[in-house]
Amino acid sequence: MADWSLHRQLEQDTINIGDLPLSRVLVVNDANYPWLMLVPRRANAKDLVDLNEVEQGQLMTEINRVSRALQDITKPDKLNIAALGNVVPQLHVHVIARRTSDPAWPRPVWGVVPPVAHDPQEIEHFIRALRKQIWLS
Amino acid sequence: MADWSLHRQLEQDTINIGDLPLSRVLVVNDANYPWLMLVPRRANAKDLVDLNEVEQGQLMTEINRVSRALQDITKPDKLNIAALGNVVPQLHVHVIARRTSDPAWPRPVWGVVPPVAHDPQEIEHFIRALRKQIWLS
Repeated sequence: MADWSLHRQLEQDTINIGDLPLSRVLVVNDANYPWLMLVPRRANAKDLVDLNEVEQGQLMTEINRVSRALQDITKPDKLNIAALGNVVPQLHVHVIARRTSDPAWPRPVWGVVPPVAHDPQEIEHFIRALRKQIWLS
Repeated sequence: MADWSLHRQLEQDTINIGDLPLSRVLVVNDANYPWLMLVPRRANAKDLVDLNEVEQGQLMTEINRVSRALQDITKPDKLNIAALGNVVPQLHVHVIARRTSDPAWPRPVWGVVPPVAHDPQEIEHFIRALRKQIWLS
């Protein structure tokens, strides 16, 4: 665990909102969608199968916790959960709140429209709500 | 559980290869990628958070089992795991073996190129290997 560090590309594309027992929780810098990311703090993990069974169970627990928080705050039409990693090889799980009115619907979000910068006040409010739900619920 | 049935669209797009304790295991009719799907046999489940914690843990176990089988058989460059469901609302998890030489790489597979029909002998061979790995390993 000592030699884990967040991949530079993920660091550049996100805001760090804190650590769960296994994963770092990030908000993706794209105001098109409420979009979170979980990155298990395990060096050299590329695929889900690179985690052991205890870590996989913990990851599912954390996906559930973060998904419920996102659902409570944003009331989406659908959640999208995905571990792809074709571009950034460090294992990371997307948790995205989708609306039938969002710019990519019903397609997956990747590469459909350019990212939009967050409004500073809106994202501050969103992160505060998220922290409260994830760490205090 | 009594009133669960596979969504018509998923039935049409796949070959049923059998049931794990929670999920039906399907092969997607698209020879562009070795592409499996897990569908938890729980009526009205749309998102991961609609499963209870025991079912979520079991789903992770089944994702791991199917992923390892797919990895052993196809030796991919990357696995893609995703629960999207923007088009077909019944909860289903894609488990896709990706190669840097496949027609969508590095993009996600959805909607990039039209599906290609399987060669009957190749798919029979693949399904036999898969059944052996998933149910006997």
